Amino acid sequence: MADLKPIMSVEELDRFMDVAFPQMHEGGRLNVIEAVGPGAARLRLRYSDRNLRPGGTISGPAMMALADYAMYAVVLAHIGPVALAVTTNLNINFLRKPSPADIVAEAKLLKLGRRLAVGDVLMWQDGQDGPVAHVTSTYSIPPVPGASAGNA
Amino acid sequence: MADLKPIMSVEELDRFMDVAFPQMHEGGRLNVIEAVGPGAARLRLRYSDRNLRPGGTISGPAMMALADYAMYAVVLAHIGPVALAVTTNLNINFLRKPSPADIVAEAKLLKLGRRLAVGDVLMWQDGQDGPVAHVTSTYSIPPVPGASAGNA
Amino acid sequence: MADLKPIMSVEELDRFMDVAFPQMHEGGRLNVIEAVGPGAARLRLRYSDRNLRPGGTISGPAMMALADYAMYAVVLAHIGPVALAVTTNLNINFLRKPSPADIVAEAKLLKLGRRLAVGDVLMWQDGQDGPVAHVTSTYSIPPVPGASAGNA
Amino acid sequence: MADLKPIMSVEELDRFMDVAFPQMHEGGRLNVIEAVGPGAARLRLRYSDRNLRPGGTISGPAMMALADYAMYAVVLAHIGPVALAVTTNLNINFLRKPSPADIVAEAKLLKLGRRLAVGDVLMWQDGQDGPVAHVTSTYSIPPVPGASAGNA
Repeated sequence: MADLKPIMSVEELDRFMDVAFPQMHEGGRLNVIEAVGPGAARLRLRYSDRNLRPGGTISGPAMMALADYAMYAVVLAHIGPVALAVTTNLNINFLRKPSPADIVAEAKLLKLGRRLAVGDVLMWQDGQDGPVAHVTSTYSIPPVPGASAGNA
Repeated sequence: MADLKPIMSVEELDRFMDVAFPQMHEGGRLNVIEAVGPGAARLRLRYSDRNLRPGGTISGPAMMALADYAMYAVVLAHIGPVALAVTTNLNINFLRKPSPADIVAEAKLLKLGRRLAVGDVLMWQDGQDGPVAHVTSTYSIPPVPGASAGNA
Repeated sequence: MADLKPIMSVEELDRFMDVAFPQMHEGGRLNVIEAVGPGAARLRLRYSDRNLRPGGTISGPAMMALADYAMYAVVLAHIGPVALAVTTNLNINFLRKPSPADIVAEAKLLKLGRRLAVGDVLMWQDGQDGPVAHVTSTYSIPPVPGASAGNA
Repeated sequence: MADLKPIMSVEELDRFMDVAFPQMHEGGRLNVIEAVGPGAARLRLRYSDRNLRPGGTISGPAMMALADYAMYAVVLAHIGPVALAVTTNLNINFLRKPSPADIVAEAKLLKLGRRLAVGDVLMWQDGQDGPVAHVTSTYSIPPVPGASAGNA
């Protein structure tokens, strides 16, 4: 994966997402793209009462949405604004009960093929001894019209 | 799994969820428990603009939240109102692009042990030829204080 | 999935596998294809000392190999003898300790697209109350040379 | 995870495995534990004709067995020789076609709880640009008789 280079900046990703997913930030911008780099992206889920669960913890669905968004961001950052890339698989292990605080998600590409992109996302919180969740996910990349058939 | 019998009704589940997860239904009650039976529960995600994605499809996170809620419902229906049961793993395969319409989720227990419950959730829409998503998920059941250590 | 129809018989699958995977049956034919049907295949892992683990149980890797072979069989049965179809994802939940006896695997297609096939495999043993394992798996189907680009 | 420290050496692991899983090395010792460290273990699958598949690649089941063995090694190294720790979940993404050569597996613990251990395993080959497979897996740790009930 030596040759991975992002071709979209954080600002370009934000602009694309705002147009493609206007509903996403209803009620406030909670999932924030903080940085992109070679094969990687870092996002933050800002703490909000909306994501709370009994016992003062963050809801699982909020963490799954963060992971899905993080994977989407790292894939788009490397292939460009292709709204039709779709998640085909997402596997999450919840590791520790999160505190009522921000969650940081570090997404990394494990593979960027012509048809499939695979990555993992590690989520953690300041002050926690170990990650709060770990995700692997696969994206299907739409075929480029006119391109010859290639390997996945 | 011949001996599985729900011990909570739809009404009891609703009442428990409303108290335990008051935030869940903010903005309208979209995830609805429709039925519980031996080892099974059926839920419905009501169609809403909030869950829309580009191309007129339902968002992946909305489907993951539905699956998580469906598993929680089928587990609680069989072990009783234990707010502290927590998802430890969720694996989703997105199979077909959903139409802008309701999604039905059929959750089934594959195992109900003393420490772990495992189930799968099949999601489909009226008129679709085949399911829109399939989920497997594991719940960790908190130890009963005073109970002797047993097998998972 | 109303229109799924197998195009290879058990005998044709066996013949293809014997040529494509001569190593598979070294030391005895343990994974046996028993039946194929619309969107489905049934296989059997014959009990053998080779698959034993401490405590008189069947090894996890033997069950994963059975699941992988079952998915391969159900996919090939429906798309024809394409040696280059490859597993891209396999997720297994081990549910109950298997007895030292045969394991039956029922594989079902959840989706058969042009690029991806997704299915699940339920494994059980005679006399066990509930399945011993559950698997979901994705196969990547190689592009047909000359075919126009299509959806996954 | 700052405080993880292995309590078994490679030699102690080998000795335990040889007694607990005598069948594992039938036909030659292919899965080799090379090193253990804080929260980590490195294993090697030695190349052998037995693991070959059409097209000169390594079989998927051989890679799943390697991952399962690697997780078992890293868990045991940190909790001691508990033969009854069992895999409850294994999720593998096959990323690149392996060459007919050794595969190295780096296993890392993401969580080591009293009831569950979760880790991931990255597999690669010398000269490949990127990993050949990525695995996450969960082990259930048997309750210690007489211990008080604790969190997972």
